[in-house]
Amino acid sequence: MLSITKPTLLLNKEQCFTNINLIVEKARKTETLFRPHFKTHNSAHIGNWFRKLGIHSITVSSVSMAKFFSAYGWRDITIAFPVNLLELGQISELAAELNLNIMGDCSSILPVLENGLTYRVGFYIEIDTGHHRSGLLWKDLTEIEKMLEFLTTSNRLQFKGFLTHSGHTYSADSKEEILNIYKDTVRKMTYLKELYRETWPDVTISIGDTPSCSLVDDFSGVDEIRPGNFIFYDLMQFSLGSCELDQIAVAVACPVVSRSVKRNEVTIYGGAIHFSKDFLYKNNGDHLYGYIVRIEDKGWSKPIPGAFLANLSQEHGIIRAPREVIEEIKIGDVLGVLPVHSCLTANLMKGYLTLDGEAIAY
Amino acid sequence: MLSITKPTLLLNKEQCFTNINLIVEKARKTETLFRPHFKTHNSAHIGNWFRKLGIHSITVSSVSMAKFFSAYGWRDITIAFPVNLLELGQISELAAELNLNIMGDCSSILPVLENGLTYRVGFYIEIDTGHHRSGLLWKDLTEIEKMLEFLTTSNRLQFKGFLTHSGHTYSADSKEEILNIYKDTVRKMTYLKELYRETWPDVTISIGDTPSCSLVDDFSGVDEIRPGNFIFYDLMQFSLGSCELDQIAVAVACPVVSRSVKRNEVTIYGGAIHFSKDFLYKNNGDHLYGYIVRIEDKGWSKPIPGAFLANLSQEHGIIRAPREVIEEIKIGDVLGVLPVHSCLTANLMKGYLTLDGEAIAY
Repeated sequence: MLSITKPTLLLNKEQCFTNINLIVEKARKTETLFRPHFKTHNSAHIGNWFRKLGIHSITVSSVSMAKFFSAYGWRDITIAFPVNLLELGQISELAAELNLNIMGDCSSILPVLENGLTYRVGFYIEIDTGHHRSGLLWKDLTEIEKMLEFLTTSNRLQFKGFLTHSGHTYSADSKEEILNIYKDTVRKMTYLKELYRETWPDVTISIGDTPSCSLVDDFSGVDEIRPGNFIFYDLMQFSLGSCELDQIAVAVACPVVSRSVKRNEVTIYGGAIHFSKDFLYKNNGDHLYGYIVRIEDKGWSKPIPGAFLANLSQEHGIIRAPREVIEEIKIGDVLGVLPVHSCLTANLMKGYLTLDGEAIAY
Repeated sequence: MLSITKPTLLLNKEQCFTNINLIVEKARKTETLFRPHFKTHNSAHIGNWFRKLGIHSITVSSVSMAKFFSAYGWRDITIAFPVNLLELGQISELAAELNLNIMGDCSSILPVLENGLTYRVGFYIEIDTGHHRSGLLWKDLTEIEKMLEFLTTSNRLQFKGFLTHSGHTYSADSKEEILNIYKDTVRKMTYLKELYRETWPDVTISIGDTPSCSLVDDFSGVDEIRPGNFIFYDLMQFSLGSCELDQIAVAVACPVVSRSVKRNEVTIYGGAIHFSKDFLYKNNGDHLYGYIVRIEDKGWSKPIPGAFLANLSQEHGIIRAPREVIEEIKIGDVLGVLPVHSCLTANLMKGYLTLDGEAIAY
């Protein structure tokens, strides 16, 4: 039995390998480069699990994260976040040591990059295929061509291709809608690739969001995928249909500290500083911050029917459950919570405990 | 000018002192013990600011936090969180070194505490005056008296009194409602104090939430207050009427990394791993994650009219603003964000930069 005294992020290592392998195998079939996003686990140790499976190219979301993984020997890193001009010095230092790719969505930044960089850096034009968070609209050919024109003569920026994050899959209502967004994304990105193929024969397209990459079986025509969340999954992904509940590889073990049989609630030591505050809506409009599982000898049970994490303050969590469930729980017990958003939870917990009792640093 | 290259939590030290002093002065008038909650800043350095103002008794929300502040010489600490039986060993160790108070809301835990503790610990019965998060309902005299009966003969638990957190002030619609909740809380807590005064002449009542403690001028009849957020305040408190905008002592400085004049949006490096995800509702039902300010030589401006943080993903924030504001912003600029919930933001940022350029550890 695992020794739990305070909120602890349990990790099912075996399930992680299964989750990784599923994508590895699918990508292999179409010779699509699988460049996993490491922001989800953000762990040097877990990074090595990917290495064992033959992965040497990774995605990160900040210069800090690129520096972190560079220190652990990763030599091919894409920072899939609009380039932060204020960190140009650090980007330049990193580029001296590894194959670094950055991205941007505005021609105005290109001269700044050209002047600020000492080493050659791979450059992606970020494309907005419908998510509207950042990126140039896929049909904004005027600005795209302005950027390409600069890149043609650049000494520091090596144009790699077009990169997008179709995060609007997270608002989809059905698996079918996710698949349609994927198709639409590939269509728009392929259009750009074909349009500039003559001048740029090596141009690639890079896409990547966990819902698409989980549901799509055939990545034909896509050069690179960059999902991240799939290694752990979570209730958000489950609600989208990207995974089954038993594919979720993380659960937060939390001590029970108070109980109200009258309100059908127990209070756990486990709050917003452990889970963050992403939530799903229940059918009745209530917020849901997690499903509740029992901690078992070698893992955790299926979710307890009717039990859910109903509220979070800084360090308190409120679990609501049917009366008979509440009556069985005692102060000092430990319950598990399947989180809504595993990336944010892992970022807060800053460490994992495998089911074999191995502590892994974030 | 402060040197900002990535999301940075700016701290207006002078305003912090003003905010602390306001409560110090009010508490002094009624000889109410001001035992500030340190979970908001969670900083040894900032703790010393309180020491300078004569404060030696503090509140924390976990055993880990009690250990942290104990290491910095704090010798009178209340853990205002239902006691976690799984950390009894550490509680016992701490009790050897300082005046430690814990709390609980169930008679079943008392024998466990009695057997597990080696040193004497102060004990509060946690009372639920209407927040319904944890605590015994104030009128549940049967269970309260069962606890008191045990405490009468306990060798390890020294009964200190009744403690409550009237967190339902955070759902109040007006200042008047907050003041009414405060009055109701004091009435219920005083009722309990009076009821058991003969047997327990030294019994105290402890209350504490920032909305009440900010709006109430006279703490007569209250032995102790434990607010925490007031040192920084935030938009949540502003929306409740607990503070003015210029009392907010923290802002997150964030680099601009993308801009869409078409959508009237800019994207900042600053997301859910910097702010957490608490939000307010705008009048039209949209979410609001922060107000936008300009970073100035010695601080920040008033909020830019019409500009707000409209969305957060892991590391991206989306600012929406009137067209003329967006047009003036360039990639590489730095904007400030007044956060919705400063406690969660500070917990994520793990450090501060004062307006004089001094880095302070969380």
